[in-house]
Amino acid sequence: MSSYLPRSLEKVIEEFEKLPGVGHKSAARMAYHYIRSPYNDALVLAEALKEMEEKIVYCEHCYNVSENSVCDICSSSLRDKKMLCIVEEPLDVVAFEKSAIYNGLYFVIGGVISPADGIGPEELRFQELKQRIRKLLVDSNGEGAEVVISTNPSLEGEATATYLSEAIKEIDKEGSIVISRIATGLPTGADLEYADRTTLKRALEGRRGL
Amino acid sequence: MSSYLPRSLEKVIEEFEKLPGVGHKSAARMAYHYIRSPYNDALVLAEALKEMEEKIVYCEHCYNVSENSVCDICSSSLRDKKMLCIVEEPLDVVAFEKSAIYNGLYFVIGGVISPADGIGPEELRFQELKQRIRKLLVDSNGEGAEVVISTNPSLEGEATATYLSEAIKEIDKEGSIVISRIATGLPTGADLEYADRTTLKRALEGRRGL
Repeated sequence: MSSYLPRSLEKVIEEFEKLPGVGHKSAARMAYHYIRSPYNDALVLAEALKEMEEKIVYCEHCYNVSENSVCDICSSSLRDKKMLCIVEEPLDVVAFEKSAIYNGLYFVIGGVISPADGIGPEELRFQELKQRIRKLLVDSNGEGAEVVISTNPSLEGEATATYLSEAIKEIDKEGSIVISRIATGLPTGADLEYADRTTLKRALEGRRGL
Repeated sequence: MSSYLPRSLEKVIEEFEKLPGVGHKSAARMAYHYIRSPYNDALVLAEALKEMEEKIVYCEHCYNVSENSVCDICSSSLRDKKMLCIVEEPLDVVAFEKSAIYNGLYFVIGGVISPADGIGPEELRFQELKQRIRKLLVDSNGEGAEVVISTNPSLEGEATATYLSEAIKEIDKEGSIVISRIATGLPTGADLEYADRTTLKRALEGRRGL
C-alpha cells in the first residue's frame, strides 16, 4: 500500500497497526477517520496521548496505573490492609472494582509466566511482590492476612499461581498468611451443555456440599 | 469504568472509542498497550497524528488525500487524462492503484447519497465534480472522454451512480463523454453456491456472449 499514500498518512497507519487486534485495513480506516473528522480529533488524541505518557505512573505499592506515586486504592483508609489480591493486569483491577465485591488491596504482577513467549519470573514483578508480602506481614502483625491469587484460569495463569504460592510461602515461613486461589467453575448464566471440558472438570472438582 | 481509572488514561480510552469499529474494551486494550510499551509508542503516534493533520490536504483536482495541492496521480504526465474514475473514498483509489489495472485519473466524491443518514448531494462533492467534468471536456477536446462510475455496488452506491450519471449528462449536453458503470457479478474465486441472491441476479443480468 505504501507508495499509494502520502507519507504522513502512511506513518499513522503504521502506528495504529502496532496496536493489539488492529490489522492493516482497520488501521487505514482509523487514520481516514481522523482525516475526515471536522473536529481536529487527531490533535485531541495526540494531546491525550502526550498527557497520559506524562502523568501515568505505576503505584509503588501495587503497581496499578495511577497519576500519583501511591494509588487511590492503596492510600485509602477504608480498605482492608490484610487482604491482597494478585492480578495479572490493571484491567483486572478494574473488573474487581466495578463489581464492588472486594475491599482489600491489589498487586499487579504484570502478566503470566510463559516460557514460550520468553517470559519468566524475572520479566514479571516477583521481586516487588516479595517486598509487598513482607509489608503485608508487618501490616497484619502476623495475623489474619490473606493473599488471593487471581491470575486467569488459563494454563499459564495456573502455573503462575502455583509459582506465586511457592514464592509467598518462602517468605512467610511460619505460614501466617492464608494463600487462596480464586475459584474456577461454571460462570453464572452459563449453559452446562456448552461448557468446555476443562471448565466442566474444574466445576466438578470444586463441587461443594449442600 | 470511569472512576476506577486515572483521568488521563480514561481520556485516551474515550478518544479511541470514537474510532470506527472500536468498542470500549478494545479502546482500553489499546490505551494499555501504550502504557506498557517501552518505546514511547504513544508519543510516536501523537507526533504522527500531528504531522498528518498538518500535512494532509485534498488534491484540488481529484480530492484524494495528498501532501501537495495537486496529487501525484493528477500531476503525472503518464496518466490518461481522458479517463476519469469516480470513487467514494480515498481507500478506493488505493484499491485501484494497487491492482495496477487503471491508468486514468480519479475523482473522490466523498461517500454516497444516503437520505437515511442525512447525506444528500450537497454533503458530497457534486459541485466540485461538475467543475471537474467541465475540465474533462476541455482536456479531451470533446473526444474520447470516459467516466467510469465506481461507487460500491450497494443500494446507496447504485442510487448515487444513477444520480452522478444524470448530473454528468446535464453538463455534457452533447453527449461527448462516455459514461460507464463498473461491472457487478461473481468475484473471482467465488463459489456460486454461496453467492447471495443480488450478486447472482446481477451476474446473470450482466452475462456476456461467448
